[in-house]
This record gives sequence, structure tokens and C-alpha cells, in this order.
Amino acid sequence: MSFTVWLTGRPRAGKTALGRLLAAELGARLPQVRHLDGDELRQGPLADLGFLPAERRAANLRVAWAARLLNEHGVACVVGQIAPYAAIRDELRSTLPGYVEVYLECPLELAMNRDAEGLYARALAGELGPFSGLDDPYEEPAAPHIICPTGRQSPAESLAMVLAWLEAAGLVPPGPAAASQDSPYTPEEERLVEQRLKDLGYL
Amino acid sequence: MSFTVWLTGRPRAGKTALGRLLAAELGARLPQVRHLDGDELRQGPLADLGFLPAERRAANLRVAWAARLLNEHGVACVVGQIAPYAAIRDELRSTLPGYVEVYLECPLELAMNRDAEGLYARALAGELGPFSGLDDPYEEPAAPHIICPTGRQSPAESLAMVLAWLEAAGLVPPGPAAASQDSPYTPEEERLVEQRLKDLGYL
Repeated sequence: MSFTVWLTGRPRAGKTALGRLLAAELGARLPQVRHLDGDELRQGPLADLGFLPAERRAANLRVAWAARLLNEHGVACVVGQIAPYAAIRDELRSTLPGYVEVYLECPLELAMNRDAEGLYARALAGELGPFSGLDDPYEEPAAPHIICPTGRQSPAESLAMVLAWLEAAGLVPPGPAAASQDSPYTPEEERLVEQRLKDLGYL
Repeated sequence: MSFTVWLTGRPRAGKTALGRLLAAELGARLPQVRHLDGDELRQGPLADLGFLPAERRAANLRVAWAARLLNEHGVACVVGQIAPYAAIRDELRSTLPGYVEVYLECPLELAMNRDAEGLYARALAGELGPFSGLDDPYEEPAAPHIICPTGRQSPAESLAMVLAWLEAAGLVPPGPAAASQDSPYTPEEERLVEQRLKDLGYL
């Protein structure tokens, strides 16, 4: 049984960017990793669903099903999906045994500010249907495992926070940088140092 | 990339029984195997879907999505789902790179005959909605990879047919019985036999 890191946050909070970085880094440390990103899934296996509350819930549960299947076969998952309702996030937590909730905290003004593709402008023009944080609620997570203040943090800084948490939880082995801090010497150097200390009578 | 064996056939053709046997046998020969059975999925991730043609298609494609994800991470899948329409089976074939279609051929009379739970009786009483092979078509596969005549074959016999095909296709290594036919001798015995033949001047 592996785990699923669920990145929740309003549109343009940085879910896709952080998801890609995290999936790449986990891919270097774990046998199998899968990135399931909302924007991409909406073009395929979620294409039949719109943005009404029941459809958002169905979309989240469908992805949770796939993530759980993958987890059960040893594949760690990184999911990027808004998951805007507290009730559905509670369902996700009880559906996924290895659920790790990461809240990408980004104030609405900043999210709108960094929206180069004009998603918010289209939403405000009424072109996109119910939109999280505007005419549909984005309920802030009350007890996420990790909060990344992406409004004032780079994706790389968010990545470091998430990795530190996953390492501390024992879900991910330390990366090369952390591992190399165990000893600054190669095994051969360590043997020579040990021999030298023995020669000098310290061991 | 692994593969998916899709068991198609009318209700009571034996999809669940063969699926369980096949998943167990593949589990002994491959690193990872998953059985995705229609009856079980209908209680969970397909619970929102009924039995109208568009819903049957959606159910098949949803399972194909999960199977493909698992295949991409090295998990072989055994799917048991009616998949009654030729058009949707064509879609499955093009969706799943490792699609192996097994047609469980069982005449309607025999399927009705072995229906201990009274599924057909309930369908005929109008309790179940559109029912494959009665008021909804079951279109016989025109070009399945394997045909198992489950109307006059035990699940174990069907299993042997499917395994033989998968072995011949190189998708599954030979089982213990087949492997032991390569030589009746242990490596030590083979060495002794070889030495004896050399001693006698035959090698």
C-alpha cells in the first residue's frame, strides 16, 4: 500500500506546477509514481462531468478510486484537483488509506493576479459555469497535513516543504542531498580513517 | 506496459468464475495482477451508472481507464464486464494497448439454465432494466483473441485455453507444469548424464 498526496487549492494556486515537480522528485526516490492532474483528466476520463457540486464530488471520487487502485499496487500518486468542499475532502480522507492533504494557500487576489491565461476573466464573464472561489465556494481546509503558502512561495519552496513532511512521516526516503549528510566520506575513505585511528590507538 | 484480459459474454456466461481463476493463476506467475469484476464495480465506482447504452459505454470506458493506468505501471488486469456492443469493444481495443479479448460463448438457453440466483427471472419480470441478450442486444464478438465455449466447458478448461494463448503470445511465462516438461532431470542429473555421454564418446 502506497500513498496519495492530494494537492487542493483554488484555481491558479499552483497545483499543476507543484504536482509536476513533486511527481518528478518522487519518481527519483520511489519505484513507481503517477501524477493525476485535474486539468488533464477533465479532457479524458472526467470529460462527462461539469462543475455542479454533485459533479465535482463525482470527479473527486473517480480520481480517488483510480489513486487507490494504484496505491494498492505500490504506485504513489500525486493528485492535483481543486476538491473545494470540506465534506468531499473528508470522504477522500476516509476513502484513501494513504491520503496526505496539501493545501495550496493562495489569496484570491494573488491567484487572479498570476492568471496569465485569463481564466478568471472568462469566469467573471460567465463563460465557465460555477467557478471555485467566485460563484462557487472554495472552503479552506481546516486540518490539512501540510499548508504551502503558494501566494508568497515558489514551487521549489513548496516542494521542499512537502518532501520534508513525507520524509518525516517515513513515506519517502531522504533525497541524495540529505543522505550524503550522513557521512562526508566514501566507504574507502572511512576505512582509511578508521585504520588511522586504530594505528594511533584511539580505537 | 502490461496487458488487460477482457472477459466479455452475456450474463451468467461465467465471467466472474473464470476471472477469479485467471487472476489467481496470473498472480502466481506475474509480479502484479488486478481483477476488476463488473458485478463488484457496479456497487462502487460505477454505482452512478444504469444500463442504457450510453451508460454501458461509460462503464466500460471508466474501467478501461483504470485498467490502462494499472497496465502502465506494470499491473496486469483481468476485467469481467459484459461489454455487449461491437462498437464499444472496438473502442476498448484502441484505448488499451494490451487489450486481449476473450469471448465467453454461452447460448442464451444454457445461461438461463445455470442461473441459480434467478437473475434472468427477475429480468423477464421487468425488475432490472435493459438486460443484455433479452431486451438489450448482446452482439457476439466478430474477432476475439480467444473464444471459450463456456456453455460446454468447465471454468478450469477455459482457464487452460486462456493461459495457453497468453503463454504463446509471450505475455505470461509458462507455469510450473509446462516448465518442468523442458527436462525431466534436475541440473545435477543433467550434468551427470552429459558426463556419462562424454565418457562413452557420444559428445
